[in-house]
Amino acid sequence: MSFNTFGKIFRFTTWGESHGPAIGCIVDGCPPNMALSEKDIQKDMNLRRPGNTKFVSQRKESDKIEILSGIFNGKTTGTPISILIRNEDKRSRDYESIKNKFRPGHADFTYFQKYKIRDYRGGGRQSARETASRVAAGAIAKAVLRNIIGKKFNIIGAVTQLGLMGCNKNNWNNNEIRKNPFFCPDKKSVKLWEKYLLAVRKSGSSCGAIIELRAKGIPPGLGAPIYSKLDADIAGALMSINAVKGVNVGAGMNAAYLSGEENSDEMKSGSGKIKFKSNNAGGILGGISSGQEIITSFAVKPTSSIVNSRETIDKKGKNVKISVRGRHDPCVGIRAVPIGEAMLACVLLDHFLMNRAQCG
Amino acid sequence: MSFNTFGKIFRFTTWGESHGPAIGCIVDGCPPNMALSEKDIQKDMNLRRPGNTKFVSQRKESDKIEILSGIFNGKTTGTPISILIRNEDKRSRDYESIKNKFRPGHADFTYFQKYKIRDYRGGGRQSARETASRVAAGAIAKAVLRNIIGKKFNIIGAVTQLGLMGCNKNNWNNNEIRKNPFFCPDKKSVKLWEKYLLAVRKSGSSCGAIIELRAKGIPPGLGAPIYSKLDADIAGALMSINAVKGVNVGAGMNAAYLSGEENSDEMKSGSGKIKFKSNNAGGILGGISSGQEIITSFAVKPTSSIVNSRETIDKKGKNVKISVRGRHDPCVGIRAVPIGEAMLACVLLDHFLMNRAQCG
Amino acid sequence: MSFNTFGKIFRFTTWGESHGPAIGCIVDGCPPNMALSEKDIQKDMNLRRPGNTKFVSQRKESDKIEILSGIFNGKTTGTPISILIRNEDKRSRDYESIKNKFRPGHADFTYFQKYKIRDYRGGGRQSARETASRVAAGAIAKAVLRNIIGKKFNIIGAVTQLGLMGCNKNNWNNNEIRKNPFFCPDKKSVKLWEKYLLAVRKSGSSCGAIIELRAKGIPPGLGAPIYSKLDADIAGALMSINAVKGVNVGAGMNAAYLSGEENSDEMKSGSGKIKFKSNNAGGILGGISSGQEIITSFAVKPTSSIVNSRETIDKKGKNVKISVRGRHDPCVGIRAVPIGEAMLACVLLDHFLMNRAQCG
Amino acid sequence: MSFNTFGKIFRFTTWGESHGPAIGCIVDGCPPNMALSEKDIQKDMNLRRPGNTKFVSQRKESDKIEILSGIFNGKTTGTPISILIRNEDKRSRDYESIKNKFRPGHADFTYFQKYKIRDYRGGGRQSARETASRVAAGAIAKAVLRNIIGKKFNIIGAVTQLGLMGCNKNNWNNNEIRKNPFFCPDKKSVKLWEKYLLAVRKSGSSCGAIIELRAKGIPPGLGAPIYSKLDADIAGALMSINAVKGVNVGAGMNAAYLSGEENSDEMKSGSGKIKFKSNNAGGILGGISSGQEIITSFAVKPTSSIVNSRETIDKKGKNVKISVRGRHDPCVGIRAVPIGEAMLACVLLDHFLMNRAQCG
Repeated sequence: MSFNTFGKIFRFTTWGESHGPAIGCIVDGCPPNMALSEKDIQKDMNLRRPGNTKFVSQRKESDKIEILSGIFNGKTTGTPISILIRNEDKRSRDYESIKNKFRPGHADFTYFQKYKIRDYRGGGRQSARETASRVAAGAIAKAVLRNIIGKKFNIIGAVTQLGLMGCNKNNWNNNEIRKNPFFCPDKKSVKLWEKYLLAVRKSGSSCGAIIELRAKGIPPGLGAPIYSKLDADIAGALMSINAVKGVNVGAGMNAAYLSGEENSDEMKSGSGKIKFKSNNAGGILGGISSGQEIITSFAVKPTSSIVNSRETIDKKGKNVKISVRGRHDPCVGIRAVPIGEAMLACVLLDHFLMNRAQCG
Repeated sequence: MSFNTFGKIFRFTTWGESHGPAIGCIVDGCPPNMALSEKDIQKDMNLRRPGNTKFVSQRKESDKIEILSGIFNGKTTGTPISILIRNEDKRSRDYESIKNKFRPGHADFTYFQKYKIRDYRGGGRQSARETASRVAAGAIAKAVLRNIIGKKFNIIGAVTQLGLMGCNKNNWNNNEIRKNPFFCPDKKSVKLWEKYLLAVRKSGSSCGAIIELRAKGIPPGLGAPIYSKLDADIAGALMSINAVKGVNVGAGMNAAYLSGEENSDEMKSGSGKIKFKSNNAGGILGGISSGQEIITSFAVKPTSSIVNSRETIDKKGKNVKISVRGRHDPCVGIRAVPIGEAMLACVLLDHFLMNRAQCG
Repeated sequence: MSFNTFGKIFRFTTWGESHGPAIGCIVDGCPPNMALSEKDIQKDMNLRRPGNTKFVSQRKESDKIEILSGIFNGKTTGTPISILIRNEDKRSRDYESIKNKFRPGHADFTYFQKYKIRDYRGGGRQSARETASRVAAGAIAKAVLRNIIGKKFNIIGAVTQLGLMGCNKNNWNNNEIRKNPFFCPDKKSVKLWEKYLLAVRKSGSSCGAIIELRAKGIPPGLGAPIYSKLDADIAGALMSINAVKGVNVGAGMNAAYLSGEENSDEMKSGSGKIKFKSNNAGGILGGISSGQEIITSFAVKPTSSIVNSRETIDKKGKNVKISVRGRHDPCVGIRAVPIGEAMLACVLLDHFLMNRAQCG
Repeated sequence: MSFNTFGKIFRFTTWGESHGPAIGCIVDGCPPNMALSEKDIQKDMNLRRPGNTKFVSQRKESDKIEILSGIFNGKTTGTPISILIRNEDKRSRDYESIKNKFRPGHADFTYFQKYKIRDYRGGGRQSARETASRVAAGAIAKAVLRNIIGKKFNIIGAVTQLGLMGCNKNNWNNNEIRKNPFFCPDKKSVKLWEKYLLAVRKSGSSCGAIIELRAKGIPPGLGAPIYSKLDADIAGALMSINAVKGVNVGAGMNAAYLSGEENSDEMKSGSGKIKFKSNNAGGILGGISSGQEIITSFAVKPTSSIVNSRETIDKKGKNVKISVRGRHDPCVGIRAVPIGEAMLACVLLDHFLMNRAQCG
């Protein structure tokens, strides 16, 4: 049982609140003797951190990580890697006006119901700030996977739907994704998305997003039936990200509309290679990787902290109005991209190690 | 780590293959001193078992359960409940012709890649026959929840989309669901669905489905952030069911298309009660139950075993054709309804016990 | 969390009560593609089963195991191995006279305090009959270890102290252990022990024992600091056996009396081999195996079910006398030998797999 | 699976090396809304920290803890409590001369065999410095238990055997234990122990110890058979402490020498109370607490770092001599007292929560 720990063999445990002195995580079970530096991790941290474009929260956090243990002479020792990230730009006063109100769409009400105590400063533990720790853990997982699998390994995430705006997935280009502020894989959509998101923010509202993740180079055989299926663990991992409401693997929800012939991916061999003719399975059959690209996507609901006035109740049960100001993302889905990548990397590494345990 | 165990405090471990002598499960962590009989469980077993209508597999299994431990004088003792279900109607010869071929859409290829050994008789462990054990465990979870929460507790599942055929969810009627062979909640759709599914089967093909689950009477406060969120555990649980490719909680994937105002559920109080004005959250905020109805849905891909000829390879890597005969469901989604209910019940009970552990 | 499951990767879950229809276990996480038959397991079962000499309980159980899953064509498939052992010689009437009394030294009182329900027939789940399942799981672990490590692997247990009777450990002879009814490693002590134990039984009393376990061929590097240390897991495993009150690793409790020079095992190399000059560590340093023989021992308290009259209370809190008749072992420690071996084998295999997971 | 995490519901994860910048832990699963301050924890830290008497290591560490999360307005929030302890007095140069040698009795050799990398500075992760984190976690567990159980709850540990010097347990006096530098419960032994330990140190050697722990006020019913027995978890917990080689519960290893009548604790009731006439069980029957005082003891081997010359090998396998200077405890067993208390407190709280989960 693990409230704040993720994973089975490669495990990370996160701690910290949005407006406490710091947040961080412990990464345990990392294989020993692999090169790892703060730089490897910082690169991914920078993808998630707030304040770096006008389309995300203006909270200024450098999200600079400190490694406090687990590395000796530039190599992992096999012991826990402790990572610390200080909270620098806390403005708890932003929360004074809402400290007794339950923000609709947030976990204010449910945390209070559960724990009978409320840390109102930025949502405390329920804040998505916690996800910075996940990105750090994920960066380590990626480094280890690259070390084990080599260059053919790659994980990339992209926003494929920004609120009502889609993109053309046929134009997917890995090289474009990190060149625009939306992690959009289709260069042609970027301009439109800019206009759309500015309009959304200006209207005092927010929008949702769909993120797609793709992992290449994953060997077949990862995934442990029945209750540690690779896709089950991916679904749990992605659904644990703040504001996520739906998860697809391969064809996902659309699989319901396909016929048996359309859906199941035919196989054929040639020149010593086995190929699938399609990938509705998202690279996973019976919970085990097939060697195809792993493809999964998830939906992030629109930011619940909006300026537009909403009805709610306060701690005494009185009906009140609420308008949430402060420094919020108009679309929290954008910054969910590196978080999704991180969670997927952790699940894949965990399953790699699990498979090595049982199957050698 | 648990390959074949589900749950944290209320845990079940399943075993058995499609064509072995029997399958079964051990249910551990069940609270003591609660009335429980084989009849309580058998009722749910009968909802899932094959051969009971012409729209499902014609394999004849009585799925009669035997309780071998954990009950004394009609009450749970707090010790493991061992359940045995014999396999009666095995026809392994059906599998002779495909024993060396990898069926597209099935886990034949990935199991073989992982374990380097293949139990081809009905798919062995990868068969959905395993889910009979889940239904047994779920029936126990339901009985315990009913015992703890009382009459206001209810879990019900329904097929809301059968391949290309939808239904009108405004006509949802709990009483209709178990009166038709599709678990369809909208009486008006049943006739159409009959014709549709017969046509699908006749054409040698199959279709997918979407199942929606609703749980009433769940107290607020269940769910343990961050990595045992109630919705994350539900997503993992449902994605672990054979052939499931997508999971939604509340608005699910559609949340991506909503605005902040549309999505977040406003609250209001009156006559001493707290009410939400909508339920896009599906009863879960920040991974913790809000006291609203829990609503989740999942997509089941079309049956991969179809008569229509498909291309694939055999164990030697040779390109071959395959046509899967035998006794298969034209839509495996239908029998997924009681399985989904069972998994949801187990997750909810598990979280009830977890919450009691930490929060009293 | 796991009430009735032991292990981390190689895991077994046991079920069943002394006087129910059967007992059994599920062994999960077993590596695939290894030869395994019922015979491999039955051999160990016969070492533990009651009724085979006059020095143990006269309950007649064949303890014949049935494998219900996980094996295909004589090989493990990597899926759960379900084992069933029927209870044949139940005489629940023996327990009628004590059904409302709490037997001193037994768990009658504590089970009742915990669960508020009592299965008095042979102690129900608290009975040492449960350990038959452990022996079955341990036999599988031994077979896998032999398969992986080869012929140099060996686990053997022996009784080195029978109540007040010791033996000369300098005479330890593996070949003698299974030739006498006490698992005594010193042939010269057997005659004396026979006389002693008959006298103990005749007097209506019972005696305790110390069992020593030795494992050869264990590679260095097994054990995962800090909280999965090999010795910590061995201690937990052995202390979980019924009636065990103390566990030693290497010098054990006597380490307290040694000086630094006497205790720490010096090393020296020669002819390409590394040797330790002594083995006070019991083959484990810092929780990790050193490559030396693993040596551990544990104390079993005297059988609590004795004929001699004892004072106790009944369920209503009334002071009563109790004399426990029935078919009990005069020294339960004897049959603890194969159980200890089994638990040690399971811990060692589990750590082998864990080490393979993290360290390759 | 958890390499560096202890516990099931109340869980702590530790990190950090002896000579890194800091060490620390995350405590998860703590019940919410309980008063907790740094002062509550610091008190226990001071019992373990080095440099406070001439009978322990002269390394000067203030062991001042910082709480980085999990507390809001003086109360626990139910979220993870992150604790940081800086390493202040590192003298890594002490280790230069032995960096390539394997110290006998230490884990140098086994860590190197396992991880193929060696952090020689103070032993890195294998150092007992890690136990400072355990004491912090244990202090939280004690505070919670006191909060739940009230004043009748108490845990106290004492050294009852210092090398060859025993004490008279009939003189056990809780109030004396923390008044002398040995945690000796018998005032009359203190002077002799002083002389003895000074002589041991002066001779360049070291000695072992036996520590006894007693917990009062523990309710009956804690402990979850079969594989989460209270005594099994205690044994695992204590054996995981550095240098521990043996663990007893109640009569412990001596139980082997008792007769059935001597060993099993008779019960009797009077004036509405149930009493046991002895406590050979150490307060635990069948793995479940009986309501009696919990009594357990463990043996700590003599400090392996001694000045007297010893034979060993270096990383290249060459035979060498070693004399370990630096600032070492002549008897590491002394500082094991607060560590043992901490581990016992964590196990007891964990089982309290586990029992509440299943049995309400």
